[in-house]
Amino acid sequence: MTDAPRTKGRSGGRMARRAIRTAPNFEMLPGLVGKLPLCEVMDSAQIEQIDDASMRILEDVGVQFRDPIALADWKKAGAKVVDERVYLDRGLVRSLIATIPSEFTYHARDPDKSLRLGGRHSVFVPMTGAPFLRDLDDKRRNPTLDDLAMFHKLSHMLPAMHSSAHHIVEPYDHPISQRHLRITYSSMKHSDKMFMGMTTSPKNAEDVMQMCAILFGEDFLETHPVTTGNCNGNSPLVWDETMLGALRAFCRRNQPVLCSPFVLGGANTPANVPATVAQLNAEALSALAYTQLIRKGCPAIYGHYLATVSMKSGAPMAGTPEISLMNFMIGQMARHYGVPWRTSNTLGGSKVLDAQAGYESASTLSAVIHAGANYIWHSAGWNEAGMHCSVAKFVVDAEQCAMAHRMGSGPNWNGFDDAIAAVSDVGPGGHYLGHPHTQENFQTAYFMPDLFDNNSIEQWMAEGAIETTERALTFARKLLAEYQEPVLPEDKNEALLDFIARREREIPAADELNQHY
Amino acid sequence: MTDAPRTKGRSGGRMARRAIRTAPNFEMLPGLVGKLPLCEVMDSAQIEQIDDASMRILEDVGVQFRDPIALADWKKAGAKVVDERVYLDRGLVRSLIATIPSEFTYHARDPDKSLRLGGRHSVFVPMTGAPFLRDLDDKRRNPTLDDLAMFHKLSHMLPAMHSSAHHIVEPYDHPISQRHLRITYSSMKHSDKMFMGMTTSPKNAEDVMQMCAILFGEDFLETHPVTTGNCNGNSPLVWDETMLGALRAFCRRNQPVLCSPFVLGGANTPANVPATVAQLNAEALSALAYTQLIRKGCPAIYGHYLATVSMKSGAPMAGTPEISLMNFMIGQMARHYGVPWRTSNTLGGSKVLDAQAGYESASTLSAVIHAGANYIWHSAGWNEAGMHCSVAKFVVDAEQCAMAHRMGSGPNWNGFDDAIAAVSDVGPGGHYLGHPHTQENFQTAYFMPDLFDNNSIEQWMAEGAIETTERALTFARKLLAEYQEPVLPEDKNEALLDFIARREREIPAADELNQHY
Repeated sequence: MTDAPRTKGRSGGRMARRAIRTAPNFEMLPGLVGKLPLCEVMDSAQIEQIDDASMRILEDVGVQFRDPIALADWKKAGAKVVDERVYLDRGLVRSLIATIPSEFTYHARDPDKSLRLGGRHSVFVPMTGAPFLRDLDDKRRNPTLDDLAMFHKLSHMLPAMHSSAHHIVEPYDHPISQRHLRITYSSMKHSDKMFMGMTTSPKNAEDVMQMCAILFGEDFLETHPVTTGNCNGNSPLVWDETMLGALRAFCRRNQPVLCSPFVLGGANTPANVPATVAQLNAEALSALAYTQLIRKGCPAIYGHYLATVSMKSGAPMAGTPEISLMNFMIGQMARHYGVPWRTSNTLGGSKVLDAQAGYESASTLSAVIHAGANYIWHSAGWNEAGMHCSVAKFVVDAEQCAMAHRMGSGPNWNGFDDAIAAVSDVGPGGHYLGHPHTQENFQTAYFMPDLFDNNSIEQWMAEGAIETTERALTFARKLLAEYQEPVLPEDKNEALLDFIARREREIPAADELNQHY
Repeated sequence: MTDAPRTKGRSGGRMARRAIRTAPNFEMLPGLVGKLPLCEVMDSAQIEQIDDASMRILEDVGVQFRDPIALADWKKAGAKVVDERVYLDRGLVRSLIATIPSEFTYHARDPDKSLRLGGRHSVFVPMTGAPFLRDLDDKRRNPTLDDLAMFHKLSHMLPAMHSSAHHIVEPYDHPISQRHLRITYSSMKHSDKMFMGMTTSPKNAEDVMQMCAILFGEDFLETHPVTTGNCNGNSPLVWDETMLGALRAFCRRNQPVLCSPFVLGGANTPANVPATVAQLNAEALSALAYTQLIRKGCPAIYGHYLATVSMKSGAPMAGTPEISLMNFMIGQMARHYGVPWRTSNTLGGSKVLDAQAGYESASTLSAVIHAGANYIWHSAGWNEAGMHCSVAKFVVDAEQCAMAHRMGSGPNWNGFDDAIAAVSDVGPGGHYLGHPHTQENFQTAYFMPDLFDNNSIEQWMAEGAIETTERALTFARKLLAEYQEPVLPEDKNEALLDFIARREREIPAADELNQHY
């Protein structure tokens, strides 16, 4: 899985140990199987209270599906539809979501990198959708396809990243109408981990499905989840045509979508934590239910993007206590319905990788782990409320996720008796650094971050007084210099390129180069 | 409790709201009553396994008490003593620690600021012991008594700080032998919150007890905990004369000490997480048991300082997954014995308040909250492995603690039905910002940090592209400009100054000004 130089065993003495200490390990971590008790802040009566409030919202307030096909689908399913508003009976909602698998396996191009999702199985997925990057020189600018490829390479190499995602950054050097093709190809080519599929339009989603069929085979796709689409809701209580069309494209092929209300607590939800959860829950349930109208038994993921809003400025905030609490609560609701659950990780609103970014990101990461989230998106690179992806933050966040993976896996009791025997050996006032038990176990006992400096200030200054950002960028450059592309079989590569070439002939590209979406 | 201008009610419209938004609130938060489920990573069999391993260490390996009085005390209590090593039978240990109160109340000079400790009751206490500070200009230098006073003032004003602690920084402009007097006076004078007592020698500890008796009255002291001493152990398995003598001074007066093994995981403990917990647990128990030999029923606190060591450099690390896991485990052990528990908060090894500091501090804070720690020390200012206290980090950490306080208090269900009614009012596609429910509730619904910037990059740049450190220092300056000293009754003030003057005449001060301890 890696061609990086790695020493084996304990022969070789000091030189070997030095090699062990300095050689990066690119091997992907297994999916996280959570062992910490879940942080559940509601009792069963409170879960029922949220459920009942959500169901009343669905029944009495209704949800707007701004899409004629969805409205027809709902009518056919027996829902009351008035104009664009669909009133969903709780019985109908419950019977529909009951067929969503509580767990499933994502299949990666490298079968060793396939991953279980749901229950206590979690994966870390990098951030996506940034219109800017902070690059290898920490310069903020518009990204290109090459920048996107760089992030896909980093995702491939960083052990805690379980996916290469999709448009980590927006490649502005390619026409927007054709961009989804190049983005998907870049995800597929630069990594053999799983990846995400673009949902920028129903047609684009169809193209992604076609490319997945080329990579994995039509039949395989039909029975194996290989990618993930995201469908954002417009809170409060609206799903639009673009998202619903893309959702259908994925569901028809049995590929999971994230049903993600886009929540800015206080702006598009009430100024109240449990009521915000109830509204978000109603929104997520309405889309989850719709996935099962499209294809019964199709995997789907309870999602959300969740910020609270500063009433001073209207700006979204990250790492606030209410976001943590809502994560704990939403995790409970998703488990109540037996649906895998997506949340967002390492968010932050700072403009640079400063202390604010660190506090916000670590607070979010911790909440996400204790909440027991399954699909842990935006796990690397996010800053400035998602406006940029930072290379420096990308590698720092990924190391933080590796640490969270270790924490989430719970204490390791292996070798406890031997270690207690060492206490007798060393005795009062002794030291352990020279003890054989320490020498045999130090590499696995305590996590040693590569990106944090714990030396004395004298040594730190002698080495140039390097702060986190610069240290991280040096690390990223080193990583990229060692990147080796996983081999994509030539026939599949050609078939993908042929498909892209055909679609690029079909899709008009005029005047779109600099357009945001 | 505060003389800061604060508007009341909702009259006054926009001007009033603006005042509300900008006026800092200096009112101390109540003690945290934890509502999150505790993160317990061991089942009862594993707790027994740690307990049994610790008891075997105490019985078979023994603990060095490098202090003739303690050795005599242990002999008298029936323990086997060989040279300086005390072998503690588990029955003796259990019967001794059984009389430690599981909860008690700390009494502050302002009775409204007295605080419960133990069970689910927790308090945040600033860092202490820094030989350097990063000052209001972020310059790293040796501290003075004025600097210490500044930190005591900040502790007094910051709502989440429940104590003014003691020597937050070391005042180098005062002779070391007399320093404890000035430090204690500064704690007492600049804040009416609770404070800590110096344990730098048995004699110094006696002086602190005398000053507490002056401030609170001899009789009151006898029956009310008013301060906290810290006694560090020398891991593995050693307690020294200085610490034990100070411990006795506190216990005799019924004042609680933190029994704190000083653990550098992998250096002075085995390279194994559960075995490190077992050794630390044995060490803590041996000192906790000793407190009850001095005074049966005296409050005492299960403590530790806990870092893991980088095997690359030998440097202590903070925010690592194993530290979080050990906090979860140690919390379980302390609760198993029914003893209040102290841990350390917002630790970090960075030389500046950069992203590393943020990640490490927030990771630690989160673990501490989920672990259910009671006496949450080093909750503001700590960086560079404790070598400096940073003014900027002090105020940032304190705000983080306020956020953690909010999170740890669990979701607020007040007004749930009204908020759900707002969902019906607003309906699909509406917005909440103008809704009366939002206007009535925005101030309390979502935490709005003062020290983090969530504005757009354009606005942030227009305002000078200010990073966290500079923003925090501006905030600290503003806070200090508004400081009002809580009135210390003149008779008590004079009695304290008389005592200090007498002791300063008695204690030689020569040649000690620049000496570290």
